[in-house]
Amino acid sequence: MGSEKKIPYKIYLDETEIPQYWYNVRADMKNKPAPLLNPGTLQPMTAEELSGVFCEELVAQELDNENAFIEIPKEIRNFYKMYRPSPLVRAYCLEEKLGTPAKIYYKFEGNNTSGSHKLNSAIAQAYYAKKQGLKGVTTETGAGQWGTALSMACAYLELDCKVYMVKVSYEQKPFRREVMRVYGASVTPSPSETTQIGKKILAEHPGTTGSLGCAISEAVEVAVSNPGYRYVLGSVLNQVLLHQSVIGLETKAALDKYGVVPDIIIGCAGGGSNLGGLIAPFMGEKLRGEKDYRIIAVEPASCPSFTRGKFAYDFADTGMVCPLAKMYTLGSDFIPSANHAGGLRYHGMSPVLSQLYDDGLMEAVSVKQTDVFEAAELFARVEGILPAPESSHAIRVAIDEALKCKETGEEKTIVFGLTGTGYFDMVAYEKFHEHQMEDYIPTDEELAKYAAKLPKVE
Amino acid sequence: MGSEKKIPYKIYLDETEIPQYWYNVRADMKNKPAPLLNPGTLQPMTAEELSGVFCEELVAQELDNENAFIEIPKEIRNFYKMYRPSPLVRAYCLEEKLGTPAKIYYKFEGNNTSGSHKLNSAIAQAYYAKKQGLKGVTTETGAGQWGTALSMACAYLELDCKVYMVKVSYEQKPFRREVMRVYGASVTPSPSETTQIGKKILAEHPGTTGSLGCAISEAVEVAVSNPGYRYVLGSVLNQVLLHQSVIGLETKAALDKYGVVPDIIIGCAGGGSNLGGLIAPFMGEKLRGEKDYRIIAVEPASCPSFTRGKFAYDFADTGMVCPLAKMYTLGSDFIPSANHAGGLRYHGMSPVLSQLYDDGLMEAVSVKQTDVFEAAELFARVEGILPAPESSHAIRVAIDEALKCKETGEEKTIVFGLTGTGYFDMVAYEKFHEHQMEDYIPTDEELAKYAAKLPKVE
Repeated sequence: MGSEKKIPYKIYLDETEIPQYWYNVRADMKNKPAPLLNPGTLQPMTAEELSGVFCEELVAQELDNENAFIEIPKEIRNFYKMYRPSPLVRAYCLEEKLGTPAKIYYKFEGNNTSGSHKLNSAIAQAYYAKKQGLKGVTTETGAGQWGTALSMACAYLELDCKVYMVKVSYEQKPFRREVMRVYGASVTPSPSETTQIGKKILAEHPGTTGSLGCAISEAVEVAVSNPGYRYVLGSVLNQVLLHQSVIGLETKAALDKYGVVPDIIIGCAGGGSNLGGLIAPFMGEKLRGEKDYRIIAVEPASCPSFTRGKFAYDFADTGMVCPLAKMYTLGSDFIPSANHAGGLRYHGMSPVLSQLYDDGLMEAVSVKQTDVFEAAELFARVEGILPAPESSHAIRVAIDEALKCKETGEEKTIVFGLTGTGYFDMVAYEKFHEHQMEDYIPTDEELAKYAAKLPKVE
Repeated sequence: MGSEKKIPYKIYLDETEIPQYWYNVRADMKNKPAPLLNPGTLQPMTAEELSGVFCEELVAQELDNENAFIEIPKEIRNFYKMYRPSPLVRAYCLEEKLGTPAKIYYKFEGNNTSGSHKLNSAIAQAYYAKKQGLKGVTTETGAGQWGTALSMACAYLELDCKVYMVKVSYEQKPFRREVMRVYGASVTPSPSETTQIGKKILAEHPGTTGSLGCAISEAVEVAVSNPGYRYVLGSVLNQVLLHQSVIGLETKAALDKYGVVPDIIIGCAGGGSNLGGLIAPFMGEKLRGEKDYRIIAVEPASCPSFTRGKFAYDFADTGMVCPLAKMYTLGSDFIPSANHAGGLRYHGMSPVLSQLYDDGLMEAVSVKQTDVFEAAELFARVEGILPAPESSHAIRVAIDEALKCKETGEEKTIVFGLTGTGYFDMVAYEKFHEHQMEDYIPTDEELAKYAAKLPKVE
């Protein structure tokens, strides 16, 4: 498997090696992701329709299924230089602790103040908004990583930033909110009285602690009803996966330097932004028949859209103001149990990844959160990095695969995405330590109830 | 001023360039730091006496005023590879924002889970404890960075770690405590009922929220009364400055690569560990008459040991169980106002830095915390990194010096130490945003009261 150059603990690329082009995996897909549908007419959304919600250049990226490479503007690359290239780490200490012959690598995206990979798309979306001459952008945030990333990008470009934060997170994570305020964002707990849809949801569910789907509806409403504003989203969309391809491109460049070819690539999957970005160039090779890789999406057992959802058109938000997307979904009303810690709580999944999964090009597994936190703590102790709960889903499965290698003696090369740090998730770690963390797995009946409400399309 | 090679945003060294030797600035000092004194006899502490409290190899390092280079054991260098070399960043965005002709660089030590430079000495001290066959170590922590760092090092080496955390921090920063628990440390709020000195202090001051000096006393008591334990300290001591010299050595190596020679070197100073480490090789050149640099220590106006303290022998701790050190001190009873956010609250200062300052080899300035947070927020928005309150003291003065250059048109090169991140300090940021942060500057009368209680030595 390639040359035997001594591999350092951390493979850093030079800043001149930051990718000059994003890679658009859709160009190499035989079966393209299904188009977004207008929620009123159920017809494919036109660029014109979409540009009421999104910036024009981002609409073009959203709809572009043909161009494999899209140039990264110089201004965005300059911003990337503040925290990229991110390190690809050889997990020597974890390998030793596990006693596995497997070789484990992780791409660490947590080395920036937003604490995650979300910044890669935040700066891109903010840049195009600025270029279009807009005053500001609106968005939603759940665990808070995306909101923080967008606040940072907007502060840098001096754009206004309005964040709707799922109420339960707003209350449980005051420090996340405060970081966004350092970056000048206004943060509103959702549902709120500031929007029509927020008022409606509050009237119907007075005690609700909010959901991502609801916060999306509010943010979209504010964007479309305020001149000079557009809505931006941190995951799910094709454009977001495109921007996140820098993760995979850097990973591949770093591995190529040492002649390393992965056998297994693992990423956590909520809306799919990190996983889609990490696997992009590898999936491209697979689609073009040049190489083969095992690619594994890891999702929480409490929100199992890939493993137990339907591949169908569904609403992207609770308020049904957003376009419909064809994706693996649990139904737009589905909200994971309050027991569930951290992100990865979206009811659907990236249409790109959904199509790839449906075509048998990748696998998916779901894991229980107590198993996830056990892996997180082991990882923190031996590798030094305190991981985000989301990222720890990938750690769990990377460890499981490495332990299988220990049994079989196979020297597989495993690469996983370490999307971020868990510094703002210590309440969840505390619950784990105090043995108060519970696992929740929805029943078949429960999932069927939500699935029955999927919109009838096609 | 050297070659005109294009300087990247971040200068990363290769992991093979991690220093192989710590640099001991004492070897080049004409006036050596004064010896530690036995608190009972007021005679210089012998190695034997010190080894009841500290590990043997660390005692040797503490007393070594002769050897300029001390080899870094391979095991420690391997640990360093998990997060070092740390980046030296060219602050292009900050320079542009300020409109200054100055060239600003910062050495960023926050890229590890402990969130600060403290890990550099934590792993060294834990390593020697392990090598000596000890069961564990005890320590104190204030803001929590040192406790976190030591917990990480001990988890890695499978050593027990008992941390006494200043009560007010324990209560205000539950998440810091929780991070230490992820790494398996036991964390006790100080003063506590677990020690004689703790009981005594609680009896005398029932409502006390604790102090560093008090937590030190408790940690030392536990170390000397439990077989197989020693005490470790995160700052002030000669050995700590020695370990932290990796910061300065890497900084110098990175600058040398591009032929850059700094004019001004700036660091925040509490006990002096970061500043002492950052300036070490530069001060060495200055002591040997090879080069000259302006070196500036920045301390909080609320705890101004350099700028308003006495250079005298004083107790290192409240309980007076530790050796006496000759240092700039405000008196061992001095506790900065509760208004003061973050660390940099120790009453004394590194004996090495105290001697260098007294010899006129460096400057010191004190700054108000509202000015510090203003600089912190500006920095966060343009450079992307949310800085720790401590580190932001250095940012404040770096900005002030850069603005002077703007007035004079001088293209000075400024290097400062960005010691860590502020993710666990959001309460302080919130106070700043809400305009509830107050500045407190002790009066001359107040300081005189503490100074009058300094022990009579010499």
